[in-house]
Amino acid sequence: MSGIWGKQLQVAIFGESHGPAIGITISGLPAGLALDEDKILVEMARRRPGQNELTTPRREEDLPDIVSGYFNGHTTGAPLTALIYNTNTRSKDYSQMRKLMRPGQTDYPALKRYDGYNDYRGSGHFSGRITAPLVFAGAVCQQWLDQYGVTIGSRVCSIGEVKDQAELDFQKLSREDLLAFRQETLPVLTEGLAEEMARCIRQAKGQHDAVGGIVETYILGLEAGYGNPFFDSIESTLAHLIFSVPATKGIEFGAGFEIASMRASEANDNFYYDDQGQVQTASLNNGGIVGGISLGTPINFRTAIKAPASIAKAQSTINIESHENVELEVTGRHDPCIVPRVLPVIEAVTAIGLMDLILTRS
Amino acid sequence: MSGIWGKQLQVAIFGESHGPAIGITISGLPAGLALDEDKILVEMARRRPGQNELTTPRREEDLPDIVSGYFNGHTTGAPLTALIYNTNTRSKDYSQMRKLMRPGQTDYPALKRYDGYNDYRGSGHFSGRITAPLVFAGAVCQQWLDQYGVTIGSRVCSIGEVKDQAELDFQKLSREDLLAFRQETLPVLTEGLAEEMARCIRQAKGQHDAVGGIVETYILGLEAGYGNPFFDSIESTLAHLIFSVPATKGIEFGAGFEIASMRASEANDNFYYDDQGQVQTASLNNGGIVGGISLGTPINFRTAIKAPASIAKAQSTINIESHENVELEVTGRHDPCIVPRVLPVIEAVTAIGLMDLILTRS
Amino acid sequence: MSGIWGKQLQVAIFGESHGPAIGITISGLPAGLALDEDKILVEMARRRPGQNELTTPRREEDLPDIVSGYFNGHTTGAPLTALIYNTNTRSKDYSQMRKLMRPGQTDYPALKRYDGYNDYRGSGHFSGRITAPLVFAGAVCQQWLDQYGVTIGSRVCSIGEVKDQAELDFQKLSREDLLAFRQETLPVLTEGLAEEMARCIRQAKGQHDAVGGIVETYILGLEAGYGNPFFDSIESTLAHLIFSVPATKGIEFGAGFEIASMRASEANDNFYYDDQGQVQTASLNNGGIVGGISLGTPINFRTAIKAPASIAKAQSTINIESHENVELEVTGRHDPCIVPRVLPVIEAVTAIGLMDLILTRS
Amino acid sequence: MSGIWGKQLQVAIFGESHGPAIGITISGLPAGLALDEDKILVEMARRRPGQNELTTPRREEDLPDIVSGYFNGHTTGAPLTALIYNTNTRSKDYSQMRKLMRPGQTDYPALKRYDGYNDYRGSGHFSGRITAPLVFAGAVCQQWLDQYGVTIGSRVCSIGEVKDQAELDFQKLSREDLLAFRQETLPVLTEGLAEEMARCIRQAKGQHDAVGGIVETYILGLEAGYGNPFFDSIESTLAHLIFSVPATKGIEFGAGFEIASMRASEANDNFYYDDQGQVQTASLNNGGIVGGISLGTPINFRTAIKAPASIAKAQSTINIESHENVELEVTGRHDPCIVPRVLPVIEAVTAIGLMDLILTRS
Repeated sequence: MSGIWGKQLQVAIFGESHGPAIGITISGLPAGLALDEDKILVEMARRRPGQNELTTPRREEDLPDIVSGYFNGHTTGAPLTALIYNTNTRSKDYSQMRKLMRPGQTDYPALKRYDGYNDYRGSGHFSGRITAPLVFAGAVCQQWLDQYGVTIGSRVCSIGEVKDQAELDFQKLSREDLLAFRQETLPVLTEGLAEEMARCIRQAKGQHDAVGGIVETYILGLEAGYGNPFFDSIESTLAHLIFSVPATKGIEFGAGFEIASMRASEANDNFYYDDQGQVQTASLNNGGIVGGISLGTPINFRTAIKAPASIAKAQSTINIESHENVELEVTGRHDPCIVPRVLPVIEAVTAIGLMDLILTRS
Repeated sequence: MSGIWGKQLQVAIFGESHGPAIGITISGLPAGLALDEDKILVEMARRRPGQNELTTPRREEDLPDIVSGYFNGHTTGAPLTALIYNTNTRSKDYSQMRKLMRPGQTDYPALKRYDGYNDYRGSGHFSGRITAPLVFAGAVCQQWLDQYGVTIGSRVCSIGEVKDQAELDFQKLSREDLLAFRQETLPVLTEGLAEEMARCIRQAKGQHDAVGGIVETYILGLEAGYGNPFFDSIESTLAHLIFSVPATKGIEFGAGFEIASMRASEANDNFYYDDQGQVQTASLNNGGIVGGISLGTPINFRTAIKAPASIAKAQSTINIESHENVELEVTGRHDPCIVPRVLPVIEAVTAIGLMDLILTRS
Repeated sequence: MSGIWGKQLQVAIFGESHGPAIGITISGLPAGLALDEDKILVEMARRRPGQNELTTPRREEDLPDIVSGYFNGHTTGAPLTALIYNTNTRSKDYSQMRKLMRPGQTDYPALKRYDGYNDYRGSGHFSGRITAPLVFAGAVCQQWLDQYGVTIGSRVCSIGEVKDQAELDFQKLSREDLLAFRQETLPVLTEGLAEEMARCIRQAKGQHDAVGGIVETYILGLEAGYGNPFFDSIESTLAHLIFSVPATKGIEFGAGFEIASMRASEANDNFYYDDQGQVQTASLNNGGIVGGISLGTPINFRTAIKAPASIAKAQSTINIESHENVELEVTGRHDPCIVPRVLPVIEAVTAIGLMDLILTRS
Repeated sequence: MSGIWGKQLQVAIFGESHGPAIGITISGLPAGLALDEDKILVEMARRRPGQNELTTPRREEDLPDIVSGYFNGHTTGAPLTALIYNTNTRSKDYSQMRKLMRPGQTDYPALKRYDGYNDYRGSGHFSGRITAPLVFAGAVCQQWLDQYGVTIGSRVCSIGEVKDQAELDFQKLSREDLLAFRQETLPVLTEGLAEEMARCIRQAKGQHDAVGGIVETYILGLEAGYGNPFFDSIESTLAHLIFSVPATKGIEFGAGFEIASMRASEANDNFYYDDQGQVQTASLNNGGIVGGISLGTPINFRTAIKAPASIAKAQSTINIESHENVELEVTGRHDPCIVPRVLPVIEAVTAIGLMDLILTRS
């Protein structure tokens, strides 16, 4: 396992879903950052399970307990560690799961990677629950980014087959818009579509199945000139972190895969001075990043989220003891769609990545 | 700039397109690896400009000169450095380019990032030319991977609007198929489509424009159990490197963005034992990776490549001296499509990433 | 603060002496290592305060609470985090200390480094208490090293002016000798000298003062061929970690500073085959390391430990509020000599360093 | 081999003494640093062989060839690579050396570490020659440090048995003193002692032997508040780099090993305000560093350098082919004392370390 990420700002994550606690240590945090603890709790609440019918009925309080690096309301410059205690770990019989490899789950790859020693209860360190400490760390970084006027927010482009056809006008996008997105369970552009998406999720749930979706994230306020190519471009940095988020299967910046079919004359984002003399681009096909460096315009990227793999519906798989092909039905409390709860996680790792990119600009 | 990547295997890249030489240092390479220099030259040749009408007419020999870490036909265990001399640097007047920010190029972001001190001649360190050392390093790593039976190869899914509709059957894919792909300028599944793609490129070129494309890469032979989550999953590792390759705007594993619209019962890749008792999956929607760890099946991902930004066609942009919006026409020797030359670069960084993942499996 | 160390094995340390808990996360630990928890507690006990009159009367239980990465008696391969709760944090008035900079203490440099935001209570993150998690991590690594037959042990060369004149015969040194050292508070070669050293400590204590000492550490069982020059030699790796241990002011390998006055013909450790055909050296002037790489002989180094800076004796210093030169008397519970408690810390970081060196030998 | 060091400023070293070139890449160097190439050459000349009778008669020009990252007299922000070509590589028969393991040399440990694949000619990557690129990189960093008023200089404390008994008054030490030291082959405090040291070296040379020495280095102008504990204290950072310098066997800060015999009341460096209201310390027992952080006073440390291992005098060793104990006489052009040439290397790595510490102060 490589549970540590970062250069100047480093995060070290730990914990399993059925252990006593999960947590994260943030090293390299500058001293003197005042933390608004309520804002942190708001972010934690966005990711917390059991909030509505669209997510798992499992409930966890998820109150982070800061045990170091924080004193008199400010960061001290020493490593800041937060713990989140696991309070709702339901005892159950894992004997079957040890034999039957659930498709789309980490049973099989973790068995091979850790020679059978991994904590398999509730997927252990692979549980989506481990993203809670990331949300905490991201909320801390977001408060640091606030000083630079950098804001992050996301909208849902699709849930299953339900797609938001509306296009977002990046030139009119405001910080307030992003903050408004963050208050919605399913932030969409087209009125009424959130309810349609919710129906799609409920339908999947009713059929003992689950669905995925696509999320688009925007960054506002990052000045031109950030990003550390050759290897630590903005895209490399964010993609590295985004692919750490369980269920992620794709990321694209700007027009992304669509740019591949464009001519250069279309794909290039032409520069112009606006009325205030600010440098702008007429389009956002490159996602506000060229050469791995920010242009000073909005930055955007889309993330593909797969459906949660745990479903009650019967699936075929292998029994590694009997070496037979078998049928499997998984019971338990599952999310029929993880997208609403992944939104704050994506924004959190984006904040972590941006803070490291800003600190490492030498 | 952060020109160094890796944990156990580390690469340090350097050079500008108009300096005396570009190159790369590979640190952490095990001692005793016999290098087939011809195989390295084959890879270098695949990326080399001036090979056919589809790429830039600029010619460079691109013969790597190994100056350290290699003795009596084997790696020594010391850092291996290869230099590639720049022989074809055409003198020209860069005064206009210093004022006019070419859309889609690094003129503007590099100016902001490096306070105007970057070597702007031929895009300097941002030149696609800097990928030549990567191809060298990848060819070295590929020879190390050969010992593990790991093979990498790519096909072209689309060039501009020309799409290969054929689907690749991952269960029948062989090492020989991948090696055959590597011998083609435009490896496709549908017969005759390469010529259609070439026409698309020629057409763009004729119109002083350029096109992009989508590439799909396969990895065969990687056993189950590689990848270092939480932060250094296979996806994170490869995406980090792939986004270092200029012109990349998206990456997706397995079904990628398509998986977002699937139900879990469809997206999950069911396991089964084949006739030889080997663990297989019925589909490859997760790209052969779950929890960031290899399943032992083929691994695949697709990369979105944008059109080269340098075009002769008129574009609107800014003059940073006069602070005016202006029209710009760029002259010079440009690639009308970079996809054929990017194929070996993507495979090279994939080889680098896989070697580091294998070495860091503790 | 940079609270993270390591390449393949990484440790992330956190905590302050008056916060709720201190701890450490070990990332990159191989799965399947069975931990003998009693052995860990034995090491923790060696460092624990309040054991005898030679150390501080402050008492802490120092029982590590493993919250992740450990399941069914084995490491899981996921990050292993241990917490140690602070149970004996005495409330006191720190207002004076905020003005008066104690000589030899971190008051002044921490103030400058962290702009006054550091947790100053009990020296905060700079407290010697923070070495407790290192001892935990070292004990885990030592159990891994046991598989390779690598053993670490130390003796006390001097306490204040009391010097052990006896020379250790490295060729006769056994694993049992090192384990016997680890059972002593003041392991010495000359009989009766430990009591003399204890008297020296008591005397300093009686005079409201404190003393330092020199420690010599031996490593047995490391085979020839470990160490990663150019930059990660054994010496660089161990020195980096040893200088993280508070109160350390010097390190020397083999003959160390004495080697500087030797002729090469004396300093060079001549090789010979012993009766069993094993490669040996006739002397240990290079500490068992040449070119940064182990020779397969014992390895040794000495560490200089200064006296604990906190003393009740009057000292002159500055008042940063009044900007005056003043006299200062510090009260509190202090160690009159830290050497006995530093022994297990030095051995612990040595174990951490060796494990990383072994894991990174590619 | 781990040929890469650093966090924000990273150096990647490469080359062998008998290969075509050696060199170094500096990544993370800020853009816009104007380089005085003459000053770089002055430093290179200090380390260059063949300057006088005290060093090897082998001559190398050692002119660094900057191939990247430097444009119009300034650093570009891209990786800066310098090559130094090996012009004086004398062909000789290495067959004997492959069998006979020279004591104190890297023949044996390198054989074990690299399974016999290392380039053994002239000690290959272990040659002292590889420090030439470090001197280059250090000279670049020193020019950056000049902006901060940070100056580094060293004096020779001893050569063999010849010791400089004079004490340096750190409170009177000036930047000019340090620069004057840098102009001497053997900078000493006691008049006439340099000639005595030179005699000691000539004497050893005449007896086909070699001698070592002790060097004391001072840093002036570093403000209070630099250093990144817990793991990246100033001491850890500098010791890591210093132990990369071949022939180094010990390092001590301030009073170093002497501090171990001091009482705390003596060891603690008392603070006071001087006439200008500046914070000073009455002594320098802690080397200007407490808690791993600079106090704003001078910083000092001493390095123990062993005699060069290559001597013509007969030595006993092993023949790894015949598995016999044998006598060995080594011929060739050797340094009878490496101290004069190590001075600029120690100062160079100190500059590299300080620059990284300053850049990583977040």
